[in-house]
Amino acid sequence: MQPSGVITITTDFGHKGPFAAVMQGVIICRFPQARVIDLAHDIPAQWPPEAGFWVHRAYKYFPPGTVHLAIVDPGVGTERDILIVEYDQHYFLAPDNGLLARMLEDADNANVYKLNMDALDSLGVSTPSATFHGRDIFAPIAAELAADRITPAAIGTATTDWIPAWLENPEVDAGKVSGVIVTVDSFGNLISNIDERWVRDFKDAVAHIGGHEIPMLQTYGRAKPGDYLALVNSFGVVEIARAEGNAADGLGADRGAPLTVTNAQSA
Amino acid sequence: MQPSGVITITTDFGHKGPFAAVMQGVIICRFPQARVIDLAHDIPAQWPPEAGFWVHRAYKYFPPGTVHLAIVDPGVGTERDILIVEYDQHYFLAPDNGLLARMLEDADNANVYKLNMDALDSLGVSTPSATFHGRDIFAPIAAELAADRITPAAIGTATTDWIPAWLENPEVDAGKVSGVIVTVDSFGNLISNIDERWVRDFKDAVAHIGGHEIPMLQTYGRAKPGDYLALVNSFGVVEIARAEGNAADGLGADRGAPLTVTNAQSA
Amino acid sequence: MQPSGVITITTDFGHKGPFAAVMQGVIICRFPQARVIDLAHDIPAQWPPEAGFWVHRAYKYFPPGTVHLAIVDPGVGTERDILIVEYDQHYFLAPDNGLLARMLEDADNANVYKLNMDALDSLGVSTPSATFHGRDIFAPIAAELAADRITPAAIGTATTDWIPAWLENPEVDAGKVSGVIVTVDSFGNLISNIDERWVRDFKDAVAHIGGHEIPMLQTYGRAKPGDYLALVNSFGVVEIARAEGNAADGLGADRGAPLTVTNAQSA
Repeated sequence: MQPSGVITITTDFGHKGPFAAVMQGVIICRFPQARVIDLAHDIPAQWPPEAGFWVHRAYKYFPPGTVHLAIVDPGVGTERDILIVEYDQHYFLAPDNGLLARMLEDADNANVYKLNMDALDSLGVSTPSATFHGRDIFAPIAAELAADRITPAAIGTATTDWIPAWLENPEVDAGKVSGVIVTVDSFGNLISNIDERWVRDFKDAVAHIGGHEIPMLQTYGRAKPGDYLALVNSFGVVEIARAEGNAADGLGADRGAPLTVTNAQSA
Repeated sequence: MQPSGVITITTDFGHKGPFAAVMQGVIICRFPQARVIDLAHDIPAQWPPEAGFWVHRAYKYFPPGTVHLAIVDPGVGTERDILIVEYDQHYFLAPDNGLLARMLEDADNANVYKLNMDALDSLGVSTPSATFHGRDIFAPIAAELAADRITPAAIGTATTDWIPAWLENPEVDAGKVSGVIVTVDSFGNLISNIDERWVRDFKDAVAHIGGHEIPMLQTYGRAKPGDYLALVNSFGVVEIARAEGNAADGLGADRGAPLTVTNAQSA
Repeated sequence: MQPSGVITITTDFGHKGPFAAVMQGVIICRFPQARVIDLAHDIPAQWPPEAGFWVHRAYKYFPPGTVHLAIVDPGVGTERDILIVEYDQHYFLAPDNGLLARMLEDADNANVYKLNMDALDSLGVSTPSATFHGRDIFAPIAAELAADRITPAAIGTATTDWIPAWLENPEVDAGKVSGVIVTVDSFGNLISNIDERWVRDFKDAVAHIGGHEIPMLQTYGRAKPGDYLALVNSFGVVEIARAEGNAADGLGADRGAPLTVTNAQSA
């Protein structure tokens, strides 16, 4: 794989303090030509599934050869492993805590490696802090990958064994799919883990959330102001929205809320 | 116009999720040399006037030939048009929903085009999503403009007809100007749409907001701690501030609050 | 010093409006090759000590020759001075209001200059606004320094006199150090100004905050979920954390809270 020189960073650091910026600083100390893009920093503290969701859904909008760094790391400073993944012409780097597991389960031909901690010496990473591996371990590795100076195989051991995903995959039956809300955007749209491929053939589909029945439409503009609607969003998953309103507020729903989509014609 | 390779992005996406980042990803897939700058993402959801205000007031601080992308788009997925504007050596791209209208009304010689949707094919934009044109239509066009590979005239039709601004222009009388608060910054400064040119010749001017009378001064440092003051701010509009305090909180005022400035000597 | 072309920006502007972005615009108008990195924008309004703390603790993660711009500027528009500092192969630019004072007190061989306001003419900075020197004065100077077109000595006067720090330095006694919480991160970790060098030799050290006694450990993973712990964090200062929780919320503590660390064996 030919690196693009681009590195994306996804964390639960929020937009406070210099934490993401110093990761960028460390990267450009090693590889001044790197382009570093903040993908998302608003992942709920210590909750890997949302980071994995966004990395999985967003990576393909970046150039092939991009390195995607995702640091939601409740086990920092313990013996947890670090995964380096080659998949679909992109690199992914994350703690082995389930963050990448959903993507890896869907992946036909991902190459997954566990970082050899003794490879860090050869990269000049000698004494990482106990609490900020994003800066002290992940950023240097991302820089070296993006600079095409190392390969995953050179610093890791191939594996087919990793910590499983924290969220169950949706339950897919004939005419019925049951999933969960994974994230909520700034508009209050409730974004689920129900992939469009499971509902694509439904006719007059209906979404069920918190006792509400909500019709599936093509886009926001098809609903009357104030109405709720379900749709396949631009990242290929089912989303609950409210036309000219905020669905999360209106429905009192948040991350973790169960969502079921049924095929009305089969009901 | 010679593009600078710089693209600014203004949205109402907030600082949640990967929405702005994937727009940058799409841009650099097409034009790896682009410099992408987030201008503002805290525009209130679905409220174009504030996006237009900031783009209008901020564009001149960027290099000539910069492309300014502004996506506040309540009509996404409906038949609303897309405007491409050449003005004062900058490009502007936005939905035709009033966002750019105030700037265009002030502009002496802007060239305004409506995007021909069938030009998208030639740009390789084949099947945009129904809900994220920022990523699927605006970002590719911005990249091609910034790369100097297309011109507005090549993909649009010249027009003098666009959706008007959502906010009335201030009412300007002799010795009295009445406008409205357009935005509030992190310090609680209330920023209006009253341009300095309308109050420049006032002597001992007084600002009236929410029943308060507030003197116009030159800068924050001229007021005593806790005092309110009005001033022409660094973007050339009247602003209400509170010395070492928060005017929005103190006055209980927000976006939309009416503001009048009078010339005390003419009263 | 050979500039790296990198400029970091630290402010109290928050993540609202185009304020940080237009500073970047002004920089690249002068020096298109600049790499501009937002270090932190969430400094509490008008509170220089936190900006100075982060710049001091974070600068070394950027390439030598980087320009660090820190704008927390309650005195903007008054006669306050502007400091330009060369220290440890980095440049620092800030209002002379105590922001850089703590770092300068620790610095063995910093070269400190006060900007000559009449040097601004030669840089083409003719009529700065009264309220946004970050854009109109600091950004142009940062660009010229990063472009290696000026030196601090050429536009400033060497000085050993500057406004002192707003926060007292910690009180260091045998077996006891008393400091204060300077900032709180997104996880609710309470970050103090107690440097690791003062507690390095403590055995079974205990942190005292708000009536609680909290043991010092090596990393988050050594505590049971819900337990509080103190540790030397990745920026070399004592921090109070809560395993899988939020220490600030749990302890009801915030910036300014007194923190004492004692050496249990000497007690």
